[in-house]
Amino acid sequence: MTPTITAFERSPDGGKGLARDTRVRWALEEVGQPYAVRGVSFDALKEPKHLALNPFGSIPTYEEGDLVLFESGAIVLHIAERHDSLLPKDANARGRAIAWIFGALNSVEPWILELQNAKLLESDKPWAQDRMLLVADRLRGRLQKLSAYLGDKEWLDGAFSAGDLIMVSVLLRTRPSGILNEYANLAAYVSRGEARPGYQRAFAAQLAFNQGKR
Amino acid sequence: MTPTITAFERSPDGGKGLARDTRVRWALEEVGQPYAVRGVSFDALKEPKHLALNPFGSIPTYEEGDLVLFESGAIVLHIAERHDSLLPKDANARGRAIAWIFGALNSVEPWILELQNAKLLESDKPWAQDRMLLVADRLRGRLQKLSAYLGDKEWLDGAFSAGDLIMVSVLLRTRPSGILNEYANLAAYVSRGEARPGYQRAFAAQLAFNQGKR
Repeated sequence: MTPTITAFERSPDGGKGLARDTRVRWALEEVGQPYAVRGVSFDALKEPKHLALNPFGSIPTYEEGDLVLFESGAIVLHIAERHDSLLPKDANARGRAIAWIFGALNSVEPWILELQNAKLLESDKPWAQDRMLLVADRLRGRLQKLSAYLGDKEWLDGAFSAGDLIMVSVLLRTRPSGILNEYANLAAYVSRGEARPGYQRAFAAQLAFNQGKR
Repeated sequence: MTPTITAFERSPDGGKGLARDTRVRWALEEVGQPYAVRGVSFDALKEPKHLALNPFGSIPTYEEGDLVLFESGAIVLHIAERHDSLLPKDANARGRAIAWIFGALNSVEPWILELQNAKLLESDKPWAQDRMLLVADRLRGRLQKLSAYLGDKEWLDGAFSAGDLIMVSVLLRTRPSGILNEYANLAAYVSRGEARPGYQRAFAAQLAFNQGKR
């Protein structure tokens, strides 16, 4: 059964691949699962029809027969569990790969969102400039720890996994601020992720979608 | 094999159950799995020995033979996968319960942490008062959506699951601000969670640990 995901009709990033549908597209491309995409306008996000799929009124959602899922982490994990290539077979390695999905979403992304929110929601406030510096330094504190852990490893823990897929997707969001490039090994890690054919296909697909080629 | 988790030697909340070891203790109590707890000082969190368990230098961690996990969400999911009572048997319901783990951690908790950070890290800043109001309203926006979804349901999706365990644990963190009680159905939902014998045992255990009774 072909799953259907949702994406912004027009992504706020204009197709730079930073919206959360890209990570789900990437997982589907990695495992070779065809999928359909339904565009949702910003107004439609607040409508009961969409809230029934995602109570928080965001994208992506995932529909496959009777199953409806929300949360990019849960959707990528669901895809990874049903195919071979995104989670190791060894039980302990599998547990660690899943821990990295949570690690990316909970120990890294909130600091990135804090910086994005400072820019998007509070740039007109008198504290905007001073506070942005604080928030950027808090993010650096996180990236420093991740960089120290990664060292010169290719991926977070053995072979490329769903944990790397989410971590690379999350880190990509720090590139516009210039902060990613302060950590050479993290920047190289993200580039390795982007170089994967699955990522390339996902990126091209979301860009075409954002350009109205559907 | 008895797993060992880590907890703060002295929790910043003084034993109110808001540190993240409580959610792992709760999961272990729900499934009836005995466990050991190792206390970690704030200084020890930064040492290589602890960073080898959790690269971000936080608690909880989970050690079981050769397996080492970090991230409370990953640990609770690992426990839930190995026992019967925290995830539904039906594949679709199981997927939705896991989506709620991610939903609690990614669509609710960051807004709570933003408010906590405003208090803990920026209360001495000139913008503290004005900004706290903004941040509290952003959190209300999230809780309003969750409240609308929950309605008069007992739990998020059918029987109590690991998704509820994490959501209740996350929402408990909003109680000190008074904001939880603005949403009667969410406050009642949290109370139902707290009333579970597994939560009661977990809370008592973390309180005794924080009081030095080990």
